Amino acid sequence: MDRVADYRRYIQDFLTNLSQAKMLGADKADEFETQVIFDMKNDHYQLLHLGWKEQTRTFGVSIHIDIKNGKVWIQRNSTDIDVAHELVEKGIPKSDIVLGLQSPSMRKYTEFAVI
Amino acid sequence: MDRVADYRRYIQDFLTNLSQAKMLGADKADEFETQVIFDMKNDHYQLLHLGWKEQTRTFGVSIHIDIKNGKVWIQRNSTDIDVAHELVEKGIPKSDIVLGLQSPSMRKYTEFAVI
Repeated sequence: MDRVADYRRYIQDFLTNLSQAKMLGADKADEFETQVIFDMKNDHYQLLHLGWKEQTRTFGVSIHIDIKNGKVWIQRNSTDIDVAHELVEKGIPKSDIVLGLQSPSMRKYTEFAVI
Repeated sequence: MDRVADYRRYIQDFLTNLSQAKMLGADKADEFETQVIFDMKNDHYQLLHLGWKEQTRTFGVSIHIDIKNGKVWIQRNSTDIDVAHELVEKGIPKSDIVLGLQSPSMRKYTEFAVI
């Protein structure tokens, strides 16, 4: 269980740092609200951008990560950041990372866990 | 503060009930995972659907609600449910609900709070 507690901390640190880095660029950062959403009970972790610029709405999940059965599932990544690589750098082994954003039939061709 | 504690409970009950109602239809419900995401610390509440069907990915925020400064912000609703009406029925006054999914310039024409 300590291992999973570490994973929770790594994921939260990773998303918090990204939210503070104003990844949309300094000029756009003022127009949007960046939210980090951490549900520790259900193990869902998200980075979200939303806002209005005149009549145009922005609402999008940039990164979504779950922990299921002790494994870290990358479910969504609309950024150009290599999320799996970043999590491996933090100390999560590839065998405990599932690329949920790859189809189940393709996952076996990756270095990561299939399920 | 009791008022906001009530709002938190209403929102969580509302999203939990929806997640259990298999709103996507019984035939589709098996193909998708429904997540309720509750971040009580940052006051973000979300209903999300995700899954794979063969090579097709589904990932979408169905409903997203925030509480900011004691007001309930409906930020996203891709369902056909009248979320504001449901929250009013639960006991949240219109003056404490902001339709974040309406542009700021349009909100003054609604019966709800502007900010």
